[in-house]
Amino acid sequence: MVDKLISKIKTLENPVCVGLDTKFDYIPEDFLTGEGGTLEYAANNIYRYNCALIDAMADLIPSVKVQSAYYEMYGFEGVRAFRNTIQYAHNVGLIVIADIKRNDIGATASAYSTAYLGTTQVAQKQETAFGADFVTVNGYLGTDGVAPFVEDCKKYKKGIFVLVKTSNASSGELQDLEAEGKPIYEHMADLVDEWGQELIGEYGYSSVGAVIGATYPEQAKQIRKAHPNMFVLIPGYGAQGGNAEGLLPNFDKNGLGGIVNNSRAILTAYLNEKYRELTFEQAARQAVLDMKRDILQTFGKHGISYK
Amino acid sequence: MVDKLISKIKTLENPVCVGLDTKFDYIPEDFLTGEGGTLEYAANNIYRYNCALIDAMADLIPSVKVQSAYYEMYGFEGVRAFRNTIQYAHNVGLIVIADIKRNDIGATASAYSTAYLGTTQVAQKQETAFGADFVTVNGYLGTDGVAPFVEDCKKYKKGIFVLVKTSNASSGELQDLEAEGKPIYEHMADLVDEWGQELIGEYGYSSVGAVIGATYPEQAKQIRKAHPNMFVLIPGYGAQGGNAEGLLPNFDKNGLGGIVNNSRAILTAYLNEKYRELTFEQAARQAVLDMKRDILQTFGKHGISYK
Repeated sequence: MVDKLISKIKTLENPVCVGLDTKFDYIPEDFLTGEGGTLEYAANNIYRYNCALIDAMADLIPSVKVQSAYYEMYGFEGVRAFRNTIQYAHNVGLIVIADIKRNDIGATASAYSTAYLGTTQVAQKQETAFGADFVTVNGYLGTDGVAPFVEDCKKYKKGIFVLVKTSNASSGELQDLEAEGKPIYEHMADLVDEWGQELIGEYGYSSVGAVIGATYPEQAKQIRKAHPNMFVLIPGYGAQGGNAEGLLPNFDKNGLGGIVNNSRAILTAYLNEKYRELTFEQAARQAVLDMKRDILQTFGKHGISYK
Repeated sequence: MVDKLISKIKTLENPVCVGLDTKFDYIPEDFLTGEGGTLEYAANNIYRYNCALIDAMADLIPSVKVQSAYYEMYGFEGVRAFRNTIQYAHNVGLIVIADIKRNDIGATASAYSTAYLGTTQVAQKQETAFGADFVTVNGYLGTDGVAPFVEDCKKYKKGIFVLVKTSNASSGELQDLEAEGKPIYEHMADLVDEWGQELIGEYGYSSVGAVIGATYPEQAKQIRKAHPNMFVLIPGYGAQGGNAEGLLPNFDKNGLGGIVNNSRAILTAYLNEKYRELTFEQAARQAVLDMKRDILQTFGKHGISYK
C-alpha cells in the first residue's frame, strides 16, 4: 500500500495529506440542512461537508486522514459518517488513512485490524466494516499488539503508522526517557523497523511506517538516519507550529519518505482572513495549494525534487 | 465514580467485572434471529446476547467492561450495539467500563473524552454519544493526551484506567525498559498517580486508576507499594494465565483496590465441559460465582475480607 501512496505523491508532486478532523462547529451555518440538535443531524452535515471538501481537493492530494475521535463524539451516527467518508474518498481515488491510534493485545488487536483493514466474517460471508488503506497504531503494548495489524498489511495489502514521536508538547514525558542509552521513541522506532522488514516496497519504504511530529525535526533526523526504510506520517505542520524546514529530515532527495498532514488550517480555511473572498471549498483548495507551494519551495532550496 | 464502584464491590462482596468482548461466533446458533450474513444481523444478535447475559448476572456483579474492538469489527452497526449495551447495563444498575484504550492529543483527546465520558454539544443541545462510567486510556502521549479525560472525570464524575503494565507476553518490550533507575511502567504509574491526586475518594482510591495485568503480580506489588491510592483494573485472570494468588498485591485487607476482569471464560462458559448441562445464561452465571468463590477463598487465606 505504501507503493500506491508514494506513486500518487510522485504523480501529483504533492506530499500533503488533508486531515478530515471535522467538527460540527467548523461547518458554515448556511451549509447546514435538516432538523437540528441531534447527533444524527450533526453527523449527516459533517459527512456532507467532507464530501464537498473532498470534491474540491481530490485532484490535488494523494490522501486524506480521517480522525476517528471527531466522529465518535457524535455517537454511532458519527461512526457511520466516518465509514461513509472513507467510502466517498475511495470513490474519487484517494488513499485513506484512518487515524484511530488503536492498541490492544492478541485477539482484540486482531478485531481492530479486522475492523479497519480487513473483512469481518459473519456466517460464511465476508463484510467490510470500515475498509481504510492505512491506520495509525499505538505500540505501547509491544509486538502482541501490532503483529495482527502487520499480518493484515500483508494479507490485504494495507499499511500502518505506529506512534513513535508524537507532535505534542508533553510527548517527551514517556517518549524521551532514556533507556539502554537511547530514548524510548528510538526503541519504538527500532520495533517499527523490525515489524516492517517484510513489507518494504519498490521505492525502498515499508508499509509499516511511523508517526513523527513536524514539531520534532531533530528527533526525526536521528530516526531517519537509523531507519532509511521508514515511511513517516507527519502531523503538526501549521496549527501546532511545525514548519516546512522541520519536515526535511524525513524526505529523501526525490521528495519521498513521508506524508505531511494538515487538518484544521484547511478544514476552516474559509475563516482565515487571507481567504475571506472564497467559499469554504475554494478556501480549502487554496490552502492546500499554498501548503504544497510552501513545502515544494523549501524542498527546492535543499535540492529535493520530484523530477 | 470510583467510590460508586467500590461501594458496589463491597455490597456484593465481589470484585469481578465481566468483559463483554462478544464476538458473533460466541453466540449459540439456536439463539440467533433475523436474516443472516450482514454486519447489522451480527450486531443485533450480539446486543441480544449481551442483554441475556446481563440479565443473568446483574445481581451478582458490580460492573461490566465492554471491549470496543469486538463491536467496531461489525462496523457502525456494531458501534450501535456497543452504545445500546452500555445503556442496557446502566438500566439494570451496572457500572460500565468502556475498554477503548483511546489516546490522542489536545482537542482530539477531548473529542474522545466527550464521546465516552461527556456530552456532545450540537447547536445548543447536549447529547450523550456513549455515556460510559469509566474508559481505558493509553498514556504514551503524556499529559496532553490524558488531561482532557481527567478534566471530564471531575466535570461528569467519571473515571479512567490508564495502561501501566499490560497482561500480554510482549508488554515488556517497551514497558520494562529501564530509564532513570526504574522501568517505563513505573514512570507511567508515577504519572497516573500525579494525574489522579485531585480525584481521591472516600475509600482512599482515585478515579484515575491503572490497568495492570494479573499475569504480572511482582510488578503489581511494586506499583502498589509506591501508589497506595491507585485503583487497578486487572485483566488476564483465567484465559491469559493469571490466577487468584496473583491478584493479591492489588488488594488491601478489606478486599478493595482493584476490579478483576474476565471475558471469554464467562461469555463462552456454556462451551466448558464443567457447565455442559446449563444454558449459556446459567453457565455464565455459574462461571461468575465460581470465579468469585476462587477469589474470596484466596482472599480468606490471606486475611482479606469484606466484613
